[in-house]
Amino acid sequence: MTRVLLTGFEPFGGETTNPSYDAVVLVPGVNVAQLPCTFSGALTALREAVDLHDPELVLCTGQAGGRTAISVEKVAINLIEARIPDNEGRRPYGVPVVEGGPDAYLSTLPVKAMARAVREEGIPAEVSYTAGTFVCNQVAYGLAHLIATERPGLRGGFVHVPYAPHQVTESGRPSMETTTVARALAALVKAADSVEAELAEGTVQ
Amino acid sequence: MTRVLLTGFEPFGGETTNPSYDAVVLVPGVNVAQLPCTFSGALTALREAVDLHDPELVLCTGQAGGRTAISVEKVAINLIEARIPDNEGRRPYGVPVVEGGPDAYLSTLPVKAMARAVREEGIPAEVSYTAGTFVCNQVAYGLAHLIATERPGLRGGFVHVPYAPHQVTESGRPSMETTTVARALAALVKAADSVEAELAEGTVQ
Amino acid sequence: MTRVLLTGFEPFGGETTNPSYDAVVLVPGVNVAQLPCTFSGALTALREAVDLHDPELVLCTGQAGGRTAISVEKVAINLIEARIPDNEGRRPYGVPVVEGGPDAYLSTLPVKAMARAVREEGIPAEVSYTAGTFVCNQVAYGLAHLIATERPGLRGGFVHVPYAPHQVTESGRPSMETTTVARALAALVKAADSVEAELAEGTVQ
Amino acid sequence: MTRVLLTGFEPFGGETTNPSYDAVVLVPGVNVAQLPCTFSGALTALREAVDLHDPELVLCTGQAGGRTAISVEKVAINLIEARIPDNEGRRPYGVPVVEGGPDAYLSTLPVKAMARAVREEGIPAEVSYTAGTFVCNQVAYGLAHLIATERPGLRGGFVHVPYAPHQVTESGRPSMETTTVARALAALVKAADSVEAELAEGTVQ
Repeated sequence: MTRVLLTGFEPFGGETTNPSYDAVVLVPGVNVAQLPCTFSGALTALREAVDLHDPELVLCTGQAGGRTAISVEKVAINLIEARIPDNEGRRPYGVPVVEGGPDAYLSTLPVKAMARAVREEGIPAEVSYTAGTFVCNQVAYGLAHLIATERPGLRGGFVHVPYAPHQVTESGRPSMETTTVARALAALVKAADSVEAELAEGTVQ
Repeated sequence: MTRVLLTGFEPFGGETTNPSYDAVVLVPGVNVAQLPCTFSGALTALREAVDLHDPELVLCTGQAGGRTAISVEKVAINLIEARIPDNEGRRPYGVPVVEGGPDAYLSTLPVKAMARAVREEGIPAEVSYTAGTFVCNQVAYGLAHLIATERPGLRGGFVHVPYAPHQVTESGRPSMETTTVARALAALVKAADSVEAELAEGTVQ
Repeated sequence: MTRVLLTGFEPFGGETTNPSYDAVVLVPGVNVAQLPCTFSGALTALREAVDLHDPELVLCTGQAGGRTAISVEKVAINLIEARIPDNEGRRPYGVPVVEGGPDAYLSTLPVKAMARAVREEGIPAEVSYTAGTFVCNQVAYGLAHLIATERPGLRGGFVHVPYAPHQVTESGRPSMETTTVARALAALVKAADSVEAELAEGTVQ
Repeated sequence: MTRVLLTGFEPFGGETTNPSYDAVVLVPGVNVAQLPCTFSGALTALREAVDLHDPELVLCTGQAGGRTAISVEKVAINLIEARIPDNEGRRPYGVPVVEGGPDAYLSTLPVKAMARAVREEGIPAEVSYTAGTFVCNQVAYGLAHLIATERPGLRGGFVHVPYAPHQVTESGRPSMETTTVARALAALVKAADSVEAELAEGTVQ
């Protein structure tokens, strides 16, 4: 059986929970790690978790407030522009994730087949072409760079998840139950791991 | 114990399910009825269900595609303007629900306390000031008119619920799990039935 | 020629301008008045303007932040629930506009034909079924009540307009140029005043 | 004076006009070109326009239906995934813009200072981190690749513009007047061309 690592983030931006971490701990049969929501610590924590669990597949997840669907990210860019402070109060702007790294990485996971697998479970899902410019994108880029430069055998990518209902009781923003997110993540893991998914990807929508 | 009737609608507009009916059947301790999504039949079916179950409280529910939260309706207007056909292919436009009826009814339920009770369960909820101009509003108005003209002892109102996730897997529209909607409806029933809710209503937000 | 009064509001909610007033002053051939954005003063100012100009047609306008289109209001409700303070710092909640008044008024203007006339000018427009619960709705209800109880010969209604672009340069909210709003208002006046519009209204969409 | 080329697209997706081309022809003191909305022809037409006008600065523009603000694009990706057919009925999916090209280009224009310059004109503007996966992104990537591989002295980027009002009279989607878009483009050209803009860019928001 494939060794899988799922990461989620600690709460940030004034929230007391983060649906990404709350969901990954509900997925059976995987290793999990919580990443700090800091530009200084997130990638170090990711690397430590990868070293510890030696996974074959890594899916990092994060909260994307305002989105309605599970978003499988296709693009990670070499740019940090923090519009709010991270959990250490830092707000870097206009700096690269990795000095001298390529401008972006396109995910090599079968993202379209993965999103389709989630929809087949009756859960809204899409491929997204921007992971933003905050810590989520930093982790998405850092993971892709780790794979490209040091761990060619590792497969990995980034997934954004909506708010949990309890975070948006008054705001009118869309949400998704954490148990639903966990089911979606299980479907993503299975699809990412499937030869059929790879074959179905290609140029098929 | 209060006798409660919850109604939901049959599917319409090309959908194969309707989250309003799927949710009411999950609420324990209440009578339920499914209303047809037709201008000719909805109010007749409502009246039959009221006659059959003789409830003290009626909450009619309907699907409001695109909304993110449970919406407790404050206003029902004496106007039908169907932008899509009902399930009999009829599309009345610019006609009253009840010829000669008042222009609108404001709900006499403690709608703010009811919405608050749902939010306290960690579920997004709001008071809404428009129930639209389709069959949902017809039922909301018809129920208020029934109470005002024939059943002064009956208490009742209308609640809109979001799409279920499986209805919007590809559309990017917001959704809410049917089990979550059912929990919200149970909280609404309890709050509508509570003296405290009444007292808390008044001019308090 | 029909005597027309257009009203707009003073700025509120931290804004320094209000697109409703900025637009009405650009409409040729009409009288204009600015209403204060206060629950204590708006209706008094409206009545004074009506007394002064003795119009045959009154269109009151207000800013509806977040809307994308000119919204011709069909419904005004007898309820004030201020989620933000008015310009005197008052925040009434759960109180009627007119004690003992009917729950709501449906506009007797040809709102559908009016919205269509704006669209025929290439400007987004719609009929709206909620004018909110703030000072705009108070004025919409107060005007309808004035017509119903004291000035049966007067014709009037309420129109919501989007933000101006300069109000939303950073917020990502939709907007409409003030000159475009003014063109829309001129089209609304003409359509409200037209026998053809009346005839076209009826049960036609 | 800097030689500037602005491009806009022909209409697509069932529209009869395209606000990008309608706007560029209103900008004074620049050369303009209309690009076909086809994967086979857009980049060829761009190259011909560049050869013809020999500009120092090129801004390519396109319609981004649903956006509320002028969007200065920071990222162009090496991926085409057409969800609707182009104007030749072609719908490529999962193919690169340039076989063997880098995964993406980050714009080297002072995009933040450019967006700020538009906002200072009272017009909504933002930096965007996704230009989509249709012909617009193809042109954004193709232009960046042309600059990177053949024309190192050329400066250029891509800008998305909202719908024009007349395109969305019934849809409820946001819009911006074409004359406003033209003013924004003039401000973008001026800012792109300014040393101050470059200096202000850096790590400043």
